[in-house]
Amino acid sequence: MSLMLIDEDRLFPAEPSARKVARALYAHVRNLPIVSPHGHTQAGWFASNGPFPDPATLFVQPDHYVFRMLYSQGVSLDDLAIGQPKINEPRKVWGIFASHYYLFRGTPTRMWLDYAFQELFGLHERLSEKTADLYYDTISEKLNTPEFLPRALYQRFNIEVLATTDSPLDPLTHHKMIRDSGWKARIIPAFRPDSVVDPDFPNFTGLIAKLGEQSGEDTSTWIGYLNALSKARARFRALGCTSTDHGHPTAQTADLAPSEAKSLFAKVISGKADTAQKELFRAQMLTEMARMSVEDGLVMQIHPGAVRNHNPFIAERYGRDMGCDIPQATDYVHALRPLLNRFGNDKNLTIILFTLDETTYSRELAPLAGHYPCLRLGPPWWFHDSPEGMMRFREQATETAGFYNTVGFNDDTRAFLSIPARHDMARRIDCAFLGRLVAERRLDEEEAFEVAHELTYGLVKKAYRL
Amino acid sequence: MSLMLIDEDRLFPAEPSARKVARALYAHVRNLPIVSPHGHTQAGWFASNGPFPDPATLFVQPDHYVFRMLYSQGVSLDDLAIGQPKINEPRKVWGIFASHYYLFRGTPTRMWLDYAFQELFGLHERLSEKTADLYYDTISEKLNTPEFLPRALYQRFNIEVLATTDSPLDPLTHHKMIRDSGWKARIIPAFRPDSVVDPDFPNFTGLIAKLGEQSGEDTSTWIGYLNALSKARARFRALGCTSTDHGHPTAQTADLAPSEAKSLFAKVISGKADTAQKELFRAQMLTEMARMSVEDGLVMQIHPGAVRNHNPFIAERYGRDMGCDIPQATDYVHALRPLLNRFGNDKNLTIILFTLDETTYSRELAPLAGHYPCLRLGPPWWFHDSPEGMMRFREQATETAGFYNTVGFNDDTRAFLSIPARHDMARRIDCAFLGRLVAERRLDEEEAFEVAHELTYGLVKKAYRL
Amino acid sequence: MSLMLIDEDRLFPAEPSARKVARALYAHVRNLPIVSPHGHTQAGWFASNGPFPDPATLFVQPDHYVFRMLYSQGVSLDDLAIGQPKINEPRKVWGIFASHYYLFRGTPTRMWLDYAFQELFGLHERLSEKTADLYYDTISEKLNTPEFLPRALYQRFNIEVLATTDSPLDPLTHHKMIRDSGWKARIIPAFRPDSVVDPDFPNFTGLIAKLGEQSGEDTSTWIGYLNALSKARARFRALGCTSTDHGHPTAQTADLAPSEAKSLFAKVISGKADTAQKELFRAQMLTEMARMSVEDGLVMQIHPGAVRNHNPFIAERYGRDMGCDIPQATDYVHALRPLLNRFGNDKNLTIILFTLDETTYSRELAPLAGHYPCLRLGPPWWFHDSPEGMMRFREQATETAGFYNTVGFNDDTRAFLSIPARHDMARRIDCAFLGRLVAERRLDEEEAFEVAHELTYGLVKKAYRL
Repeated sequence: MSLMLIDEDRLFPAEPSARKVARALYAHVRNLPIVSPHGHTQAGWFASNGPFPDPATLFVQPDHYVFRMLYSQGVSLDDLAIGQPKINEPRKVWGIFASHYYLFRGTPTRMWLDYAFQELFGLHERLSEKTADLYYDTISEKLNTPEFLPRALYQRFNIEVLATTDSPLDPLTHHKMIRDSGWKARIIPAFRPDSVVDPDFPNFTGLIAKLGEQSGEDTSTWIGYLNALSKARARFRALGCTSTDHGHPTAQTADLAPSEAKSLFAKVISGKADTAQKELFRAQMLTEMARMSVEDGLVMQIHPGAVRNHNPFIAERYGRDMGCDIPQATDYVHALRPLLNRFGNDKNLTIILFTLDETTYSRELAPLAGHYPCLRLGPPWWFHDSPEGMMRFREQATETAGFYNTVGFNDDTRAFLSIPARHDMARRIDCAFLGRLVAERRLDEEEAFEVAHELTYGLVKKAYRL
Repeated sequence: MSLMLIDEDRLFPAEPSARKVARALYAHVRNLPIVSPHGHTQAGWFASNGPFPDPATLFVQPDHYVFRMLYSQGVSLDDLAIGQPKINEPRKVWGIFASHYYLFRGTPTRMWLDYAFQELFGLHERLSEKTADLYYDTISEKLNTPEFLPRALYQRFNIEVLATTDSPLDPLTHHKMIRDSGWKARIIPAFRPDSVVDPDFPNFTGLIAKLGEQSGEDTSTWIGYLNALSKARARFRALGCTSTDHGHPTAQTADLAPSEAKSLFAKVISGKADTAQKELFRAQMLTEMARMSVEDGLVMQIHPGAVRNHNPFIAERYGRDMGCDIPQATDYVHALRPLLNRFGNDKNLTIILFTLDETTYSRELAPLAGHYPCLRLGPPWWFHDSPEGMMRFREQATETAGFYNTVGFNDDTRAFLSIPARHDMARRIDCAFLGRLVAERRLDEEEAFEVAHELTYGLVKKAYRL
Repeated sequence: MSLMLIDEDRLFPAEPSARKVARALYAHVRNLPIVSPHGHTQAGWFASNGPFPDPATLFVQPDHYVFRMLYSQGVSLDDLAIGQPKINEPRKVWGIFASHYYLFRGTPTRMWLDYAFQELFGLHERLSEKTADLYYDTISEKLNTPEFLPRALYQRFNIEVLATTDSPLDPLTHHKMIRDSGWKARIIPAFRPDSVVDPDFPNFTGLIAKLGEQSGEDTSTWIGYLNALSKARARFRALGCTSTDHGHPTAQTADLAPSEAKSLFAKVISGKADTAQKELFRAQMLTEMARMSVEDGLVMQIHPGAVRNHNPFIAERYGRDMGCDIPQATDYVHALRPLLNRFGNDKNLTIILFTLDETTYSRELAPLAGHYPCLRLGPPWWFHDSPEGMMRFREQATETAGFYNTVGFNDDTRAFLSIPARHDMARRIDCAFLGRLVAERRLDEEEAFEVAHELTYGLVKKAYRL
């Protein structure tokens, strides 16, 4: 039995000279505020400030990192109550999770969870079948105390900014409620228009119509549609939004003549567009969004390369975002060219690029970000948001793009309680990387302190214009 | 002159704290039995149990890892007697090999060979022009002793299971002879139907006809052809077979309607199929094989991505499998979808995926195996079956797929004497990886012991249903 | 403030046992002569032997590694006098560079520059806004001393061979002047025919005509064109040239029948070729160049995979090679097949392959070079000519291709003063890699000394036939 779930020196290099530097750097940044410019927490939690429910509903049901691993090893999603509005037997679900917890050895999920279990709930013996009830009872009890209400945790986590991700159709009621409540927290929306710019999105034309109603624009016309999007962006900006986010299957952009774009929109809105036309429309819309960003200053994030709903059995039975998205090889060098040829040298534009294809770090992304003034590299994303993944990113991107074309960390999470653990992991890995550079005499220690601060705090605020 | 060819601490991390853990873990697994579920040894060796011939015929002629390197540096394959039925001057061939042995510095081949030289033949001075005759004489002498007969080595190597790889047309006579001999060893066939499912295989239609004769089915019809394959699988299973193996140029699968599949078969069997139709037929056959696996429980192995016979001069002059196969970029995310959409959620199916394209580890394979219950990841294969390659696999696959979606080690070798060395290398690298995780406080030491045992022994038996 | 810009132990492993070996290996090779078989220095510098101008003209204006990073962070290229014939206010340009020098933290550019600043100019405090003038004055003063004239530096750098890169249209006047001067240095041209074999090169047909005039051949015919190229090669060889160089967008080769090649040339020369025909022509010309190399013994270098002039705004305003080239995914396994099928087994041919796509190291390049006798692997190139990039190359290529299918280091630089720093970095990383192999008991220390010498000096001379 281990006495602690997490160790003070976790993730630092084992080699003593590098570890010593990493420790010192980490001491310098560990208590800096959390700036979370991209994620999927719910504003509603903070608006209503009600207690989080039981451990299974908190840790298992919403976390596709967790249940995809369980499913891969034969656990039934029905037994985990995935896709069900309410868990009828949360203790039973928790027990299944606990008895399979060994599956997460070597994964970041395990480190995120152990951090929360130890640091938030005071647990010190590893989760297993044997400790399942101890965990369940301990967590349940704490969740019902005032210290574990969403707003109390937000303060405890030392969060300076927290961005949610929202549809242009979202009335942002909860964001307004938070503002109106007088609570001094900076919880801001991010503008994610996929549902109204991606013709493959379910009920696309219906949503476009809804966008028209909401904005008072005639979204059956190209101009009206663009106006509606522009108005929605303004509405988001009024509530503190500083960024947009675009989750397309590829990074393809296009720069059509206005008349061509207009015709393409008509085709798409008619529901008769073929696969290539839909892809072209998404591509054109990235460039339209860039154009609007040049005007209104919203920072663009592009998250391309996921094949969504790879497993139709799961998607049909349990819904979208249920852990069966798989990355694909992603081109940037050709795909981004139309947009960059139009706006790539514009000093008012910032585009943050993400990838699910690590081969692009050294081949395309670092060379692109190391040249175009508008481009910055987002941190390792999703499957690559892990100790090894973060280290590969630094090792493969830094030499061409440097540190200053990156933008700090994103937690990108639905799991609010994992936010401190995720930022802590990123800080540790950055300090480990810098520690090695210092130990190998590639960077002075005093420089490493400056860089560590930038990677943790400075760059994210600058890049996201916070 | 070095006093030993191999060192007790080889392949462990140099950093003392990680090395200490790696040593302890290795002590725990080094003597576990060898389970070899996939390879290319010959059942005939064990059936007849005759002595292995001279050193050149044993170590040079059959090992394409060896002669491809020599050829790349200008050595003539004729001088090495490659492709010849018998080596006329084996000592001369050995001398060429010995004088070029320095070329293998930094390669796994060198480590496999040194292990055999030292551990089996008691040699301690590095092979070179100078020591060529010493080696030749020492090895020759030992090969003629009873301790070096195939069955004696099998026992000495502590092999628990050894699978060969066999054509559906193979009568498996040697496997039957081993069974009938009463020798207590578990040597089992694996079902590799490439020659009768790949229309590009030499004499494909002739082999299909032969399959018909052998099975008493009319293989000129789609149904008869499928029946013949099914009967062949049953025949293999009766001799202990638990797995199939599929070596296609790509991982493409298909799920045609029965009538389409029937028409495609007719086209293919007529010899008039074009390139795309041949590829589609291979793709459909993977799904047919999966269907049969759901029924009969044989585990599928897919080994895609080799461009076979890249050098036609060599292929024409010396034959197939002569070291001039080259990997190509390989897609899994789209290619496997037809098969997975049909059978990917079936609990009775296991598919073990291999790759020659390491970029797919983190981008496609780990996400796929970390979700689909039927998928497992095979160990690093061929060019990547090496210390660095194995380490990259663990570093790139573990964080998304965990340890438990992998299946232990395959030696995949034609070189029987290299089997202990290859398993030893895999055990050392796994212990080195785990040692680093412990040293970096990412895993408890007691957990690492459990995982090391699983990676060495538990997972392979479970995944291959042994 | 640091007291030294560069440290004696830089780039060695932090782990003491590996570092100790690395130090010893480095002591063995650090003073070996520099053999620079591929680069972009100007013969004119050595012909005229005039002083280098001011620091900005020397370090900022010609170095696209430098100004691409500055541009990526919003510095105006106009402010840096990029693309201008003369810098009017060099101290001001230097000041901009100095105040942004922190951007290069973690990049090889920073290490190259610091080496030159400390080792050549005796500077010890890091470049910054504060030290800008100190640097400017110190460097300016030294540049006007005899010790800093090009020929003096050539001797001081201990250069044994220095190859430039030249167009077939170049009269090589400066090379002749150097020869005629009686100065005992080996400065040789390399034959880079891109401008007259790539139909996408600006003024391609005009240059072909010029090639005809120069050679006395009728380059409007296929035969005359080939003759002219052959004569140009002979002219280069007479001045010591041992290699050609080919910088195509892809690695595609072709092997057309002579009549097809003739027709294709006619099409291309007419200016009416489409994109595919232009690509086919480049592909055919690689095979034609290989054919000539079989005859005249020039070693071929292939540098594929750059998307040139990705940013048309920069290209139009500031010209070619201005830092906006971006790598793309590059196939070798299929692309090289036509050439290799024709000449791949010819012992008189050497082709050195380079890549901007690191994924090909283990998947394609090492397997190809580990088989074909004509193929060798060039060192990491351009964006990958960096500590991490070099280490990845060794880790990913060695196990399949060994050390002896590689060719030592290329500095490939326009920046003459960076040559010692670049070779030093390569020597250190090779020693660091070998040090780890020894520390992990994968190589004997005495072998590592031999290999280090080969990687530094032996292999380059052999591969480039110097």
